[in-house]
Amino acid sequence: MTTVPLVGVIMGSKSDWETMRHAAETLEQFQVPHECRVVSAHRTPEWMMEYASQAEGRGLEVIIAGAGGAAHLPGMVAGHTLLPVIGVPIQSRALNGLDSLLSIVQMPAGVPVATMAIGRAGAINAALLAVAILGARRPELRQRLQAYRQERARQVLAETLE
Amino acid sequence: MTTVPLVGVIMGSKSDWETMRHAAETLEQFQVPHECRVVSAHRTPEWMMEYASQAEGRGLEVIIAGAGGAAHLPGMVAGHTLLPVIGVPIQSRALNGLDSLLSIVQMPAGVPVATMAIGRAGAINAALLAVAILGARRPELRQRLQAYRQERARQVLAETLE
Amino acid sequence: MTTVPLVGVIMGSKSDWETMRHAAETLEQFQVPHECRVVSAHRTPEWMMEYASQAEGRGLEVIIAGAGGAAHLPGMVAGHTLLPVIGVPIQSRALNGLDSLLSIVQMPAGVPVATMAIGRAGAINAALLAVAILGARRPELRQRLQAYRQERARQVLAETLE
Amino acid sequence: MTTVPLVGVIMGSKSDWETMRHAAETLEQFQVPHECRVVSAHRTPEWMMEYASQAEGRGLEVIIAGAGGAAHLPGMVAGHTLLPVIGVPIQSRALNGLDSLLSIVQMPAGVPVATMAIGRAGAINAALLAVAILGARRPELRQRLQAYRQERARQVLAETLE
Amino acid sequence: MTTVPLVGVIMGSKSDWETMRHAAETLEQFQVPHECRVVSAHRTPEWMMEYASQAEGRGLEVIIAGAGGAAHLPGMVAGHTLLPVIGVPIQSRALNGLDSLLSIVQMPAGVPVATMAIGRAGAINAALLAVAILGARRPELRQRLQAYRQERARQVLAETLE
Amino acid sequence: MTTVPLVGVIMGSKSDWETMRHAAETLEQFQVPHECRVVSAHRTPEWMMEYASQAEGRGLEVIIAGAGGAAHLPGMVAGHTLLPVIGVPIQSRALNGLDSLLSIVQMPAGVPVATMAIGRAGAINAALLAVAILGARRPELRQRLQAYRQERARQVLAETLE
Amino acid sequence: MTTVPLVGVIMGSKSDWETMRHAAETLEQFQVPHECRVVSAHRTPEWMMEYASQAEGRGLEVIIAGAGGAAHLPGMVAGHTLLPVIGVPIQSRALNGLDSLLSIVQMPAGVPVATMAIGRAGAINAALLAVAILGARRPELRQRLQAYRQERARQVLAETLE
Amino acid sequence: MTTVPLVGVIMGSKSDWETMRHAAETLEQFQVPHECRVVSAHRTPEWMMEYASQAEGRGLEVIIAGAGGAAHLPGMVAGHTLLPVIGVPIQSRALNGLDSLLSIVQMPAGVPVATMAIGRAGAINAALLAVAILGARRPELRQRLQAYRQERARQVLAETLE
Repeated sequence: MTTVPLVGVIMGSKSDWETMRHAAETLEQFQVPHECRVVSAHRTPEWMMEYASQAEGRGLEVIIAGAGGAAHLPGMVAGHTLLPVIGVPIQSRALNGLDSLLSIVQMPAGVPVATMAIGRAGAINAALLAVAILGARRPELRQRLQAYRQERARQVLAETLE
Repeated sequence: MTTVPLVGVIMGSKSDWETMRHAAETLEQFQVPHECRVVSAHRTPEWMMEYASQAEGRGLEVIIAGAGGAAHLPGMVAGHTLLPVIGVPIQSRALNGLDSLLSIVQMPAGVPVATMAIGRAGAINAALLAVAILGARRPELRQRLQAYRQERARQVLAETLE
Repeated sequence: MTTVPLVGVIMGSKSDWETMRHAAETLEQFQVPHECRVVSAHRTPEWMMEYASQAEGRGLEVIIAGAGGAAHLPGMVAGHTLLPVIGVPIQSRALNGLDSLLSIVQMPAGVPVATMAIGRAGAINAALLAVAILGARRPELRQRLQAYRQERARQVLAETLE
Repeated sequence: MTTVPLVGVIMGSKSDWETMRHAAETLEQFQVPHECRVVSAHRTPEWMMEYASQAEGRGLEVIIAGAGGAAHLPGMVAGHTLLPVIGVPIQSRALNGLDSLLSIVQMPAGVPVATMAIGRAGAINAALLAVAILGARRPELRQRLQAYRQERARQVLAETLE
Repeated sequence: MTTVPLVGVIMGSKSDWETMRHAAETLEQFQVPHECRVVSAHRTPEWMMEYASQAEGRGLEVIIAGAGGAAHLPGMVAGHTLLPVIGVPIQSRALNGLDSLLSIVQMPAGVPVATMAIGRAGAINAALLAVAILGARRPELRQRLQAYRQERARQVLAETLE
Repeated sequence: MTTVPLVGVIMGSKSDWETMRHAAETLEQFQVPHECRVVSAHRTPEWMMEYASQAEGRGLEVIIAGAGGAAHLPGMVAGHTLLPVIGVPIQSRALNGLDSLLSIVQMPAGVPVATMAIGRAGAINAALLAVAILGARRPELRQRLQAYRQERARQVLAETLE
Repeated sequence: MTTVPLVGVIMGSKSDWETMRHAAETLEQFQVPHECRVVSAHRTPEWMMEYASQAEGRGLEVIIAGAGGAAHLPGMVAGHTLLPVIGVPIQSRALNGLDSLLSIVQMPAGVPVATMAIGRAGAINAALLAVAILGARRPELRQRLQAYRQERARQVLAETLE
Repeated sequence: MTTVPLVGVIMGSKSDWETMRHAAETLEQFQVPHECRVVSAHRTPEWMMEYASQAEGRGLEVIIAGAGGAAHLPGMVAGHTLLPVIGVPIQSRALNGLDSLLSIVQMPAGVPVATMAIGRAGAINAALLAVAILGARRPELRQRLQAYRQERARQVLAETLE
C-alpha cells in the first residue's frame, strides 16, 4: 500500500477536528493512507469545489466530510465528484446535531451522501465504511476489518458487570 | 425603474415553483423587476456558483432562494456573493419542511441567510423583505410597501365572522 | 458484466416495495445485476442472518436495506457482513420516517450503515451510491454515473418556469 | 424461590450499566433471582441470538434489555424469543434518548417490546414490571410489590416542603 | 379456558376504538377471553379508579389501555392496580401521536406502563404481549403464539416482489 | 384577607419543589394565602383525588400543579374539580420538559388545564395567573398586579448594557 | 346575566375561525355573553393594543386568543391587560401547530398566557376555562359547568363498542 | 460616516446581551454606528411600539432584535416599521432555542422577519446581513465586507490539524 492518500477527511471548521480525529485515528489503525483538511463550503467555496473536483484525479477513492449546523459540506462535495462521499454530522451547540443530521441526510435524488451517526461514533463509522469500500479490491483491508470486528466481539464477551 | 432585474428568484427544483411563484407574484405586485430560475446546488453546482458570483455585476441587489430537504442552495449562494440572500424553506414531504428550515437557518458565523417561514407565507415574505431592502433608496417602493400594509390592516378591520 | 447479482435490495415488509422499487429501477437503469427480497429482521431473524452472512460469498458487493419504524434491518444486516450496507428509512405512518431515520442512522461505533434520505429520494440515492462503490473497479459504471449526472444537469438548465 | 435466574438483564454496552444497574438493584430489592450480561446486537449478533433463543429453556421468564442510539437489542431479542421483553431506552449523548426511545418502541406488528421511560426511571420500572409479570403465580412477589407501593405512597404523604 | 375475561381492553374515547379493535381482534384470534370498555381518565375518573382497583379481583390478569394526546389513562390505571398495564398511544390529530407516546411512556419510577408503538401496530402488539404474559402458565397460549410467529415468518418467506 | 389558603400549590414529587417554590414565592410576594403539598397522581392517587375533590369545599379558588415527564397530575386534578387548574411543566432530565409540556397541555375537550411555560418562568407565571383570576373580585390584588407590572417595566427601561 | 360581553374571543386571521368557532359555540352553550373579533398582532398592532388595553374597561373579564405559526397574539394581548388571557394554538400547515404551541406557551416570567391544546379541543377548553373563571362569582355558571361534566361522564358510561 | 446610529440592536432581556453583544461587536468591527437597548415586547409593549415606530424617523435603517422562548420581539417590531428587521433566536434553557427559532421565523404572510441561526452565530450574522443591506449605497461597507470574507477564507486555508 502506497502513501498516496486514498481517503480525504475534510471538515467545515477546525473545531470539528475534535470529532473528526476519530475518523483519522481509525483510518490510521487500519493503515489506510489519508489526508485531513479544513474545507469550508461557505467560507472557501472555490477551494471546496476544487478539492472535490480534483479528488478522484489525485487518487482519492472516498471522501469523509464532517460538518455541523447547516451542514452543507458533504452534500456540496458530493455534487462535485463521483466518488462515494460519507457525511458525519457534528454535534451542534443548540440543537445537538439534529440540524447537522437533517442537513446532511435529506439529500435530493441524484446526489447521495452516506450519512453516519451524530458525533464521535459517526466519525469512527465513517472510517470503517471507507475501509469496507476500499476493501472490495484490497483483501488485506477486509482481513483487518474482520479482525477488528472479531476483537470487538471478543471485548463484549469478556465484559463483566461490577 | 428599469426592467433590468433587481431580484433573482431561484429555486433548487422546478417542483419548488408552486411555492416560489408567490414570491414572484408579490414582486410583480410591487412592480419590482425580477427573474426566476431553477438553479440546483447539487445537480448544477457550477451554474449555481456562476449565477451567484455574477449576480451583483448583472445588477441584482437581492437574491431569493427557495429549497427543500437538505436545502443547501440559499447558503451556498450566500457563500458566493455579498448581496443579501433570503432563504425560503420549501415544505418537504416527509419532515414537513423542518429539515429545509434547519438546513437554511443554522448557517455558521460569517455567511448569513435571511430565513423566512416554511412554504407560501415565507415566499411572500421573502418578496416583501426584498422590497424593504430595495426601498432604502427607492421611495416609491417604500410607499407601495406602506400602502400594502395599510390595505392589509384595512382588510383585517373589515373582516366579519359568520 | 454477468447476471450474478452484485447488489441485494432487501426490505422489512412487502409494503416497503413501493419505496424500494425506486432503488431497483435505478439499478436497472445502470444495468447493475441485483436481486430484491423481503427479509424481516423481526419476523425472520434467522433468514435475515443467513442472507447477510452469505451475501459476500454469493458475490454480492453491496446491500441496500429499507425499513420503517423501529427500523432494525439495515443495522442488523451490517452486523452480519463486512459488505457496505446502505440504509433507506421508509416514511412511517405516525412519525413520517423520523423514527425510521434515527433507528437506522444512530448506529454505535463499530458497525456503520450508510444512511440515505427518507423515502423515494433515499431509495434512488441508495442505488446511486451502490453504483459509485461498484464503479471503483468498473469503468463502465463510472461512465454511466457521469452521464446520469450530466443528463440531470442538462435537465435543470433546460427547465423553464411557467 | 430458587437461585436459578428468572430475569435476564442485558444491555448493549458496558456503559449502559450505569443506567441498568437500577433494574438489577430493584430486582435484588424484590429478591428476584436474575443475571446481568452485556449482549450487543451489532457486535455480537450470534451471541445475542443464542442468548435470546435459549433464554426460555434456561428458565428465564422475562428479559429486560437496555440500549441506546439505534437501539436494536430489545427488538431483536424479542424476535428470537416468546418471553416478554422489556426495553429500556438509554439516554444517548446527542439526542438525549429520543433516538433510543423511538428505536425501541416503534416495533412493527408481530413482535412487541414493552417500552419503559428513558434512563434510570425506565430501568427501575422495567424491574417492577418484571415483578408484576412474575407475580402472577408467585404471591410473595405480589405482596412485596404491594408493600413497595404502600411504602412509596407513605413517603409522599410524609414529605414536607421547606 | 373459561369465558371470564382475562384481559381488559380500555380506551379513553370511543373514537379510539378504530385503533383498539385491533387489540381485541388479536385477542380473539388467540381465543383469550377479554372485555372492551370506554373508560375516560378525565371525564370519568371515579369509574376509571373503580375499574382499575377492581380489575384484579374480577379475575383480569392484564389491562391494555389506549389513549391519545395528554394520554393519562394507562398511567393512572397503573397507579390503581398491581396488574401489568400495557399502554397504546393513539395517533393524535395535530402531533401524530408523539404527545400520546410521551405521555404514556415517560412514567416516573414506581409505576411502569408497558408502552407499545403508536397506532394499529401498537394495538396488535399489546394483545401479543398480553398473550405472552398469560402464556407463562397457559401452555396452549404459548403454542398459539409460536404458531402465530411461524405463520408470519412463512408469509415473509413466501412474499414475492412484482 | 384571611389566612385560609386560596391557592393550592401541588407537585408530583419533592424534587419539583426547586421549580415550584417560585410559584410559592410569587404568591407570597402578592400576599396570597396558599398551601404547598406533594401530591403524586401515580403514587398516591387516592390522596390526589381527595385533595382535588375537596379543594373547592376547603375554600381554595385556584390549583397550581407542577409535574414532569408523563405529567398527569394537573390533568387528573382538573378531572376532579371545577376550579381553574394551572399546570407547570417541570424540566425533565432526558427530554428537557417537552414530555412534561405535551402531557399537560394536550388535554382532550372537556377538561382544561391552563398550561404555563416549562420550568421557573412557568412557575412564576402560574402564580401571576392565579393572582389575575383571584383579582376579579379582590381589587387589592389587581392593584398589586398592576404595580408588579409597572415595576418590571421600570426595570426594563432602567437597564443598561455594559 | 346581561348581554354586555364578558369574554372576548379574538383570533389572528379569519381562517382561524374554523377552530375558534368551537370556543364561541361552547360559550353560547353556557349562555356566556361574548364577542368574536379578528385582531392581528402583526397586521393591526395598534388595534390589537387598543383592544387589549380597553378590554377590562369595557367589562370583559377573560380574553381568549387563538393564533397559529409565530403566534404572538395571545402573549402580546397579555402584555397589554391584567385580565386572564387564554391562548389557543391553531394547527399550522407545515408544523402542525407545534410552532403555534411553543410561541404561545413559552412566555417569559411576568406575563402568563393560559395555554390550551392545539386546535379544536383547545378552543373548547378555552371556553370551559373561561366559564370556570367567571363561575367564581356566578353560581349559575358553576352549576352549568357541573351539569356539563356530568353529562359528559354519562355519555362515556353509556358508550358501547361495536 | 456620521455617528447617528444606523442599526438598532435590541433584545427582550438583559440576559440576552451575552449573545447579542456579538452583533454589536461585529457592527463595531465594521464601524457601523449603532445603538443597543433592552426593549421587552411583553413587559414594555408601549416602549417597544414607540421604539419601532420611530426607528425610521430617527435614521435607523435596520433593526436587529434578539429574543428567546416565546420570542415575540422581532415579529412585533416588524409589525410597527417598514425597515428590514433581523431576528436572532436566543438559546433558551429548556428547549435550546427551538422555541425561539419557531416563534421568530414562522411569521405569517405580510410581515417578514429575516431570521438567523440560534445563538452567537446568529448574532454575528445579523450584523453581517445589516452590513450587506447598508452596503447597497455605502461602497466602503461593501469593501469591508469583502475584506472580512477574504480574511476568513484566508484563515480556513491556513488552518492546520494537529
